[in-house]
Amino acid sequence: MRLRNKPWAKDFIAQHPHLLIPQPKEVMGSWNSIFKNDNPIHIEVGTGKGQFILGMAEQNPDINYIGVELAESVVVAALQKTIESALPNVRLLNVNAEELPDIFKSGEVDRVYLNFSDPWPKKRHEKRRLTYRTFLETYERILPKNGEIHFKTDNQGLFEYSLTSLSAYGMLLAYISLDLHKSDFEGNVMTEYEEKFSAKGQRIYRVEAKYQN
Amino acid sequence: MRLRNKPWAKDFIAQHPHLLIPQPKEVMGSWNSIFKNDNPIHIEVGTGKGQFILGMAEQNPDINYIGVELAESVVVAALQKTIESALPNVRLLNVNAEELPDIFKSGEVDRVYLNFSDPWPKKRHEKRRLTYRTFLETYERILPKNGEIHFKTDNQGLFEYSLTSLSAYGMLLAYISLDLHKSDFEGNVMTEYEEKFSAKGQRIYRVEAKYQN
Repeated sequence: MRLRNKPWAKDFIAQHPHLLIPQPKEVMGSWNSIFKNDNPIHIEVGTGKGQFILGMAEQNPDINYIGVELAESVVVAALQKTIESALPNVRLLNVNAEELPDIFKSGEVDRVYLNFSDPWPKKRHEKRRLTYRTFLETYERILPKNGEIHFKTDNQGLFEYSLTSLSAYGMLLAYISLDLHKSDFEGNVMTEYEEKFSAKGQRIYRVEAKYQN
Repeated sequence: MRLRNKPWAKDFIAQHPHLLIPQPKEVMGSWNSIFKNDNPIHIEVGTGKGQFILGMAEQNPDINYIGVELAESVVVAALQKTIESALPNVRLLNVNAEELPDIFKSGEVDRVYLNFSDPWPKKRHEKRRLTYRTFLETYERILPKNGEIHFKTDNQGLFEYSLTSLSAYGMLLAYISLDLHKSDFEGNVMTEYEEKFSAKGQRIYRVEAKYQN
């Protein structure tokens, strides 16, 4: 994603601490109090401009969604959309995925979504891919037993890598689709990227992976 | 595959018992004596006209190959080619895959190849797919601990199904390719089908799956 410098971003973020939680580590163990209900919490790691998380939140009012996005200049776009949506079940975090176990206690997050993650195609950047085993360890620390990762991408190389990495971690792979938009999968919510790439005729790949711990 | 009635097939097969083994159950436990060496044995289930198994046998003289094909009218074509090839490390079986545990003792086969297996796309035919769990049990009975299945197909639905089925069986998936002919995989030996379908621009999918017993 092209990152533009947005000098107003910091101020804008600071003005909406109820939506983009400024000190998330202090909320650890009590995220349900933020949402004021006991509904399950699903997070998207690398939420970009938030189209997916907002679409999911609209489709599933009984699930709470948290979008995690490291880039400040990107998360502000998600914040703007979240404000406009007025959905009560969405929050955002401007943190690194590695920090998640300091933000959520074990089992506090019910599902992790990874959508169109950066493919980092060079072998020497393998450790940065969000399906690399250290990240799988990170998600496992915040998910319940048999927690799930739902992953989609248009990038063939990243998908091949991810299936292999998820399997090597001992996860169970299910609902594999090698052409999501021509499959019978229902209720798909598209990300910004997904709209763009699928419009070009690009295949979308998808898998649900379950921890076997 | 289109099956032609070949009235001469039975006679032709009967004339070559050294290549197409007529009573394979009697050889159980002593397949190395057939090949007159202790090299590993790899089998292909659904060997068709034998192009793959013969290509592999030529490429790997230190491995023994056995092509398993149920259709008599098809296996004769493989038999003809095997005779012409004069390769010492190829044998054929005209049996059903379900019979394999009565033909090979546990660990007697080192690897199973499945290539372009019949996709049986109807849900009610799932049990006929060669990656259905009962078949995975069958192969497991003849393979050693951590034995491998190498599978390729051009059929997207069968590949999606097979990845899921292999994973659900607890197998480790590796070397997944979603476009084999554009990958860096070396030494690929094409089947008859593979030549035909890849020439049409069809993608070839491939995976190596390892038992975790």
